[in-house]
Amino acid sequence: MSSFSFELLAGDGAARTGILHTGRGDVRTPAFMPVGTVGSVKAMLPQSVRETGADIILGNTYHLMLRPGAERVARLGGLHKFCGWERPILTDSGGFQVMSLSKLRKITDEGVHFQSHIDGASHFLSPERAMEIQRLLGSDIQMVLDECPAFGGTEDVIERSLALSMRWASRSRQAFGEQPGTGCFGIVQGGTFPHLRERSAAALKEIGFHGYAVGGLAVGESQSMMFQTLEFTVPHLPADRPRYLMGVGKPDDIVGGVLRGIDMFDCVLPTRSGRNAQAFTWDGTINLRNARHAEDPGPLDPDCRCPACRQFSRAYLHHAVKAGEIIASMLLTWHNLTFYQDLMAGLRSAIARGDVQAFAQAFKARYGSRSTVDDSQS
Amino acid sequence: MSSFSFELLAGDGAARTGILHTGRGDVRTPAFMPVGTVGSVKAMLPQSVRETGADIILGNTYHLMLRPGAERVARLGGLHKFCGWERPILTDSGGFQVMSLSKLRKITDEGVHFQSHIDGASHFLSPERAMEIQRLLGSDIQMVLDECPAFGGTEDVIERSLALSMRWASRSRQAFGEQPGTGCFGIVQGGTFPHLRERSAAALKEIGFHGYAVGGLAVGESQSMMFQTLEFTVPHLPADRPRYLMGVGKPDDIVGGVLRGIDMFDCVLPTRSGRNAQAFTWDGTINLRNARHAEDPGPLDPDCRCPACRQFSRAYLHHAVKAGEIIASMLLTWHNLTFYQDLMAGLRSAIARGDVQAFAQAFKARYGSRSTVDDSQS
Repeated sequence: MSSFSFELLAGDGAARTGILHTGRGDVRTPAFMPVGTVGSVKAMLPQSVRETGADIILGNTYHLMLRPGAERVARLGGLHKFCGWERPILTDSGGFQVMSLSKLRKITDEGVHFQSHIDGASHFLSPERAMEIQRLLGSDIQMVLDECPAFGGTEDVIERSLALSMRWASRSRQAFGEQPGTGCFGIVQGGTFPHLRERSAAALKEIGFHGYAVGGLAVGESQSMMFQTLEFTVPHLPADRPRYLMGVGKPDDIVGGVLRGIDMFDCVLPTRSGRNAQAFTWDGTINLRNARHAEDPGPLDPDCRCPACRQFSRAYLHHAVKAGEIIASMLLTWHNLTFYQDLMAGLRSAIARGDVQAFAQAFKARYGSRSTVDDSQS
Repeated sequence: MSSFSFELLAGDGAARTGILHTGRGDVRTPAFMPVGTVGSVKAMLPQSVRETGADIILGNTYHLMLRPGAERVARLGGLHKFCGWERPILTDSGGFQVMSLSKLRKITDEGVHFQSHIDGASHFLSPERAMEIQRLLGSDIQMVLDECPAFGGTEDVIERSLALSMRWASRSRQAFGEQPGTGCFGIVQGGTFPHLRERSAAALKEIGFHGYAVGGLAVGESQSMMFQTLEFTVPHLPADRPRYLMGVGKPDDIVGGVLRGIDMFDCVLPTRSGRNAQAFTWDGTINLRNARHAEDPGPLDPDCRCPACRQFSRAYLHHAVKAGEIIASMLLTWHNLTFYQDLMAGLRSAIARGDVQAFAQAFKARYGSRSTVDDSQS
């Protein structure tokens, strides 16, 4: 089994491209990780996810610990075998979903007591248990347990939460120990306060992780505030370790994140949108429910290599959406994941060529969404 | 384009195997046609349907005339291009669904006035319009419009309905005209009354069709009554034309139908069951929702070649069903259609070898369901 390491291939401004080596294979960065919440990237077979170009998927510890349960997955041979995906899997710690989905949470220094959103059963998640679950699942990249404060907290609230998260990070790292081929990532918190982000990064570096995530973003703040936060946070992270922006995001968020030195992303947007008639294209987003597609014989995106675009018309996709056919979710999810992976491939190539700013500007001009290019850097 | 013709390869008792040649390719018989109600075999991509072994699929005229509409499909290049299936498609006439799904039906000799179950809009379906719709869709096998009386009608009711259906059959056949490579099938009605079935078959033969369907079964009668009806109906059908048992059925219904000389079948059972956690195996049906599968590392069916059985455990399928994941519908539909196609392939081989009775008895012994072997013939 190859050891867990990060190989930087090229840089372009703050952006970089590289390869994350894991015991279950390589991940080309910048990477987008499709979300396989409960052991399935929704509406996709694993081989189809791979065909989109994904090197790694994400599993949610919170969901998997509740159903089917970590010990059960371990008895069945681990998450990879269970869900039919033999390449790398990153698991979150469960903290974010505990905060957002569960009922009757009670947080102490020891951990979090909560009730399942499925059946109300009582559960306990500590840093040690979060790491144990991820080890039982057989995750290749395991995230520390952290507290995820709501957006808009006062400095005092964020500071106290950060202190707890850093104590949990230390305990998580200790519980992780050493697992050949597998990495443990810390998570920088600190809201939108520069000195707290710096303090968090320093504490995590002191502990020492295989990679560093930026948490507490994509929780309701503006894109410019997210980008600002990256600008004053990323420079405090070790250059030789992968950087992961959790839960992000829209295509233009990702382009902006890459320009600011982020290597890894995950988001439910391409899959969730695919189940909701929304398609991403190089010319912006399209709602297939719209009646203007009803007689359009053309493809969703003429530049796309996915089955939805190669084999079907917009008229068919519109019809399938309107009729509530499962194939609409299948095809639009496949398309959206292909778009995201092609975007990442385009970014990787542009960085390697040294013209990622031009790529980002061309993307912005055509995609036509919110600002994706960092004007402050040009 | 090759002409529409039926080539008998071998017979074994009443059972036979052959090839139905159409302008869009061959159909090996006995054949099972997956149902693609509104332009999609639910939860399957067209290439996956083909991978199960299907030579032909069925489209529902009623659903397609309401949404997206036959003229629209024609403008978009026909149903095959629209739904991404280039092989043969059989369409029903819409009559059955008009009777079972629509609102405020009014039947006259001219045709049926009804309201859409989707939006209440008024529509009219006559024999001529039913054939026009099927021609607009580009169907390879077009069914005559008939009236489908409810199960349990008195002889008088069935006889009057039959008379109407035969007048409609004549008008349907005339409206079909001649379409190279395409076939028009008549539908034998007459309930469970031998003399009415015989009269219906004679009337249809007099008109002359490319194939003959047995309608008005699988509407609530017992399996033995269905088999009896086949026994006194099939001998009145031309031996050199394909025979199609509409809307049937369970695996053991199909085995019994083949033993009685049926060549073609369609049913929503494998697809609908697949979306409802039910799997067909050689050892009978399995409900994946059952907790006994929760930790079963074995495949759904060790003898099956489908992705559900090759790549996943029963434990995973159980989990996906419980979690409401779309992949459960995708995998179980794929499995069920594979099972049905493998059953048809087994029947075809057995007939060619001349031991279809042994095949049917072995199937019954293992599948363990209702009687599938015609004891009256052994």
